[in-house]
Amino acid sequence: MSVSADLEQIEPRISSLVARHAGAGIVDVDDDSSATGLCGALRPTMDAVAAQALTSSEGGKRLRALLTLAAHDAVAAGDASPSPARDAVLDVACAIEVFQTAALVHDDIIDDSDLRRGKPSAHRALSAMAGDDAVGEGLGIMLGDLLATACIGIVNAAATSLPHSGRLLDVFLRMQREVEVGQILDLSIETMALDDPAALAAASLDVFRWKTASYTTVAPLELGFLAAGMAPADAHRHAVAVGRPLGVAFQLADDLLDVAGSPGVTGKPVGGDIREGKRNVLLADALAALGGPGRGTADGERLKEIFTAVRRTDDDVEFAIATFRATGAIGRSEERIRDLWRESCRAMDTMELDRGAAARLKSMCARFLPADLVNE
Amino acid sequence: MSVSADLEQIEPRISSLVARHAGAGIVDVDDDSSATGLCGALRPTMDAVAAQALTSSEGGKRLRALLTLAAHDAVAAGDASPSPARDAVLDVACAIEVFQTAALVHDDIIDDSDLRRGKPSAHRALSAMAGDDAVGEGLGIMLGDLLATACIGIVNAAATSLPHSGRLLDVFLRMQREVEVGQILDLSIETMALDDPAALAAASLDVFRWKTASYTTVAPLELGFLAAGMAPADAHRHAVAVGRPLGVAFQLADDLLDVAGSPGVTGKPVGGDIREGKRNVLLADALAALGGPGRGTADGERLKEIFTAVRRTDDDVEFAIATFRATGAIGRSEERIRDLWRESCRAMDTMELDRGAAARLKSMCARFLPADLVNE
Repeated sequence: MSVSADLEQIEPRISSLVARHAGAGIVDVDDDSSATGLCGALRPTMDAVAAQALTSSEGGKRLRALLTLAAHDAVAAGDASPSPARDAVLDVACAIEVFQTAALVHDDIIDDSDLRRGKPSAHRALSAMAGDDAVGEGLGIMLGDLLATACIGIVNAAATSLPHSGRLLDVFLRMQREVEVGQILDLSIETMALDDPAALAAASLDVFRWKTASYTTVAPLELGFLAAGMAPADAHRHAVAVGRPLGVAFQLADDLLDVAGSPGVTGKPVGGDIREGKRNVLLADALAALGGPGRGTADGERLKEIFTAVRRTDDDVEFAIATFRATGAIGRSEERIRDLWRESCRAMDTMELDRGAAARLKSMCARFLPADLVNE
Repeated sequence: MSVSADLEQIEPRISSLVARHAGAGIVDVDDDSSATGLCGALRPTMDAVAAQALTSSEGGKRLRALLTLAAHDAVAAGDASPSPARDAVLDVACAIEVFQTAALVHDDIIDDSDLRRGKPSAHRALSAMAGDDAVGEGLGIMLGDLLATACIGIVNAAATSLPHSGRLLDVFLRMQREVEVGQILDLSIETMALDDPAALAAASLDVFRWKTASYTTVAPLELGFLAAGMAPADAHRHAVAVGRPLGVAFQLADDLLDVAGSPGVTGKPVGGDIREGKRNVLLADALAALGGPGRGTADGERLKEIFTAVRRTDDDVEFAIATFRATGAIGRSEERIRDLWRESCRAMDTMELDRGAAARLKSMCARFLPADLVNE
């Protein structure tokens, strides 16, 4: 099926799955519940949280769901026509998007973010509804939990119509765990010393594998391959070989967009990550270029001060971006992305897919990266 | 197996399951991970969170795990001897305890609690470790997420050795969702008006079914019955009939303990719930006794003021407890508990268990309630 036809299916399917698994109806319509029904006084809050579940689920680019479907179709070559099995693959694909929403709801609480996808973040919206920040944050934590439970329920229901059903759930749970570990590691980078750029680069790249590659590329590929009937060990091996470099490159590109993108494209102000003091490979490469351990230059010292301060000014953000450019850190990230993309392509080439299927999968993978870095 | 023999197995089993599914080793030993290994800089934080997962898992009364095993043994009469299947039931029983820990870690963040089971709450301990409250709270949110994922992994692995394996996971996920809904409803009670005591009582009892009965009694019974091979529809019907009144009674008794218990028994100061402004059935019954809507007495007005204030003094707590006693609200809760226990016993009697099995199950259920209210 074409990417645009898939996209048209994904969006309404996510809404209907979230409504069924985390919507207001779960307090009534589930005859099987051990606690059906609610008195009137409790209904408005539940309705507001359920509505926020839907609002928070809207507006993603759906790259992860599209990759899951593309991975399935590449292996089940010719079998991308509508069928109960492909509907089940669609549900698994949507479950990854629901998981992302769950993770973002918690992430926005952790980062104290006001906005997400151009709208108020979930806990901010719920705070406004409740008229109480503490209650709103509590409801945000529970909304994230509810969505995380919902996505497993979606996979568990869909898996019964697919091959390797037990394995599909295992892979999905592993993906969740890896992202959770990645978030923990990401928080630990916040408290790292900045006097060893090589250690910072290594730590950032480790975090990218756990926090980003896991659910952005590796799990979508593995779940798609499994759902098409590929043997579990092969599905895992190919998904890691293709998906890990691609996922790390995707995160590098995302970090580049923050310093070089335009607000019209990203929906975020340029330098937002820098303003938050986010430490990443760009910072590590800039610090490395400005002198290794113990050989700090004045610019290097200022960069370290900026990223250890409590907050950053407009001047700080401007200086950091200029320094990332002047030191070649931006060029170095572009070079890393090109290398990782080549590694991912080589891994795809070993999969012995038929030529058309291989080309479609590669074209889907290329969508994760800036066009000028993958078309050489 | 005897309760004490079960308890001896539960405690070490929880530790080993948490270590395997949420411990430091998950970053290394899982060959199947898409992201194995960590650079040294990231290790201390991961190790600290993994250690906290174990610390937070310690010290519960394990009533839920014991009930799961008792429910299994009552149906699989005579089959409580060690076997691979009973080991799997033990794992499901432990998974409920791990889920409780996950829920408590988030609950303590939501309630801003310093202590849990006599030790610093998880996010407080992690804040102290990181030297940063925001990082500590973020790590706490992720620890709760990691434990919630872990308990599903435990059930998914154990279910393969048990009857109704797909259904076991469905029931476990439904339990999680019900508790999440219950926590959302519980937060909504915080913002209710206090001028309709009957509505407050109804709302509190609704919340008890979702927040407490679901995972305290209904799911342990249902999972135990299913694991012993009972037909799913019967397992659900009996679990709800026996477990829902028992679970609601358990929460009523827990609320009574806060106003009438001794700190030596509960590990918490008397009146801690009142100090937090927690609204429950005791408050509703006291307000109802002091006059219905529009007929407020001076004591009723003072009670409402206390529970709508930003914080409460020692005098407020003392006044509330004295009023709960003088209005007969405490006696009314005791009466509610006795009625619910009788309802639960009648439901057990319809199960047609053999006499010895029935007596053992009833004795296990009685452990959820104060001895003087169940022995009449």
